[in-house]
Amino acid sequence: MQLGSMESSSLQKQIRLASMSFTVCKELEASFSEDRTCKANNGMDRIFSGIQPTGIPHLGNYLGAIQNWVRLQEEYNSVLYSIVDLHSLTVPRDPPYLRQSILDTTAAILACGINPKRCFLFQQSQVPEHAELGWIFGCFTSVPRLRRLPQWKIKNASQNNEGNVGLFTYPVLQAADMLLYKSTHVPVGEDQVLHLELAQDIAQHFNKKYGKFFPMPRAILNSTKKIKSLRDPAAKMSKSDPQKLATVSITDSAEEIVLKFRKAVTDFTSEVTYDPDSRPGVSNLVSIHAAVTGLSIKEVLHQSVGLDTAHYKMIVAEAVIQKLAPIRNEIKRLQQDKCHLENVLKAGAEKAKELAAPVYQEVRRLVGLQ
Amino acid sequence: MQLGSMESSSLQKQIRLASMSFTVCKELEASFSEDRTCKANNGMDRIFSGIQPTGIPHLGNYLGAIQNWVRLQEEYNSVLYSIVDLHSLTVPRDPPYLRQSILDTTAAILACGINPKRCFLFQQSQVPEHAELGWIFGCFTSVPRLRRLPQWKIKNASQNNEGNVGLFTYPVLQAADMLLYKSTHVPVGEDQVLHLELAQDIAQHFNKKYGKFFPMPRAILNSTKKIKSLRDPAAKMSKSDPQKLATVSITDSAEEIVLKFRKAVTDFTSEVTYDPDSRPGVSNLVSIHAAVTGLSIKEVLHQSVGLDTAHYKMIVAEAVIQKLAPIRNEIKRLQQDKCHLENVLKAGAEKAKELAAPVYQEVRRLVGLQ
Repeated sequence: MQLGSMESSSLQKQIRLASMSFTVCKELEASFSEDRTCKANNGMDRIFSGIQPTGIPHLGNYLGAIQNWVRLQEEYNSVLYSIVDLHSLTVPRDPPYLRQSILDTTAAILACGINPKRCFLFQQSQVPEHAELGWIFGCFTSVPRLRRLPQWKIKNASQNNEGNVGLFTYPVLQAADMLLYKSTHVPVGEDQVLHLELAQDIAQHFNKKYGKFFPMPRAILNSTKKIKSLRDPAAKMSKSDPQKLATVSITDSAEEIVLKFRKAVTDFTSEVTYDPDSRPGVSNLVSIHAAVTGLSIKEVLHQSVGLDTAHYKMIVAEAVIQKLAPIRNEIKRLQQDKCHLENVLKAGAEKAKELAAPVYQEVRRLVGLQ
Repeated sequence: MQLGSMESSSLQKQIRLASMSFTVCKELEASFSEDRTCKANNGMDRIFSGIQPTGIPHLGNYLGAIQNWVRLQEEYNSVLYSIVDLHSLTVPRDPPYLRQSILDTTAAILACGINPKRCFLFQQSQVPEHAELGWIFGCFTSVPRLRRLPQWKIKNASQNNEGNVGLFTYPVLQAADMLLYKSTHVPVGEDQVLHLELAQDIAQHFNKKYGKFFPMPRAILNSTKKIKSLRDPAAKMSKSDPQKLATVSITDSAEEIVLKFRKAVTDFTSEVTYDPDSRPGVSNLVSIHAAVTGLSIKEVLHQSVGLDTAHYKMIVAEAVIQKLAPIRNEIKRLQQDKCHLENVLKAGAEKAKELAAPVYQEVRRLVGLQ
């Protein structure tokens, strides 16, 4: 298999192109809007989304995925959020760190506003049907289909072409994650678009063979601007960034936040404007500012007329501190109560199982296992 | 991936070579004998074996695997036999046929003497931990390791190199099947030797990373002669043989058995001798005769002095009829009682789960999922 030798940049480009062709497919988003209207009528829409247990999220995670989750739980009647710990095993993890990260992730998303009364919040590995359905779906997915996925090519190359079976097959488990609940809508980032397409293919194949059973899961594209690294505004903000000042954790202290924004890379123009292509640094600050205050880019720019970037950095830092302070306090409080966190996950898994079990039993019946 | 283009015969040779090098490793069998002595001391030995639900077995299955299973349940205190339906999905199956085959296989092995009081007999997909542990083990197995397995090369080539993920990863699920019960011994055919080695590697890798947890499962090599096709004594007896007279089903009527043996391919020498290389046809009859009567090859030959092969064929047919008659009647009886068969499998799964659940929970804890 020579795939690993392909240039990573060329592969990234493939993903971007695929994502673009997907993003411009406006019918998809349009029909999603229609669905949302329908939902009020039949209440059958169901959201599924997963988050890897990597511990305390950073500001980019919060303003991207998690805030979106909070919105979706208010807009939909049936919402499942899973801490996808089985996926996290596809790269080596230190067991005590993984264990702690599952609880920290739970504490963090609860503190960010995920409400277990509005959604089912659960740990993937507590619901056996994920792995079980994953096996069955694997029997409907050809190896070459998986091998063509750019994510595999990149990840396998990064492991010297010795990638493990989990890393190779996780998009099949993702398909099982969402279809196990007959989910109709899935919030996806650009890098997950091809995986959603795989899930759609699997659902279609299954329905064709065994009769209409799974709905076709559709994408909810997140319109929130991607938050960039404070040290390199060309790159996404990332927890694994070796530059400590590049990434704001949602539990950073006020002092740390001030320091990181003071050191944020901008440019030699002092005015505050929004132009991500020619002024990525300051535009990233404007994006963050808008996201944490809930204002539009236009409103934020209006408020900032006459400020130089040095001063503006401190205003953004202050807005971030304001936004994160209650979240940080709540995380600290929840971290003290491991038992509560475990109970939340347990209760969530029980509710998720109630949905998953009949679907999986029906799959078993349809394929002839019972 | 160019593996599919390799000659199948060359691959078969690889398997044979690997199996030979394994078979000649006498330490393995020797230490197995020691273990059997140990067993009487600590009772910790555990056998696991699986059978695919392909319906009513043929004479080769019965005299090879199933009679061996019956012996092992008498010799060991802890024995698990699983109808591995998840594996059967790696090739397309008609659902009603698969459903019926699970029950037919159950009826057949019960009729052959498998006693649910002496072993746990269960359906793999009724114990979720198989698929769950399979996922975790997949995260410890590199894709190149699986790609090198000759079975995959052959099976993938037979599917125009479009083999499915289940077909690619089933040796990992096999490792989970046996290690889920901390099995110490596994009866294996020649073609499964490399898969047992994979399971040993996974166990070793796990133990190295998380501390000694899994025993190293060891092979029980079956000494029973492979039963050959009655129409082509160079080939194994096989259910999928297009020549209807080649294969004796264990539910064949006396008339069918007589017809198949009468038409059995032998050679132009009329004497009954045993020389599988130069006289494979008549030697296959002698092997079958010895196996169904429980006599040695020597005893069978002694009894057959002076007989010509035409007459001998009828003697073997009669011995097979005698052996299979009660089994055939019992299968017919059990097939009438679907409810009983389902209850046997359900009770077996409950007992298997009692063993599997604590092992899998401990694996979850060790890897950091709880």
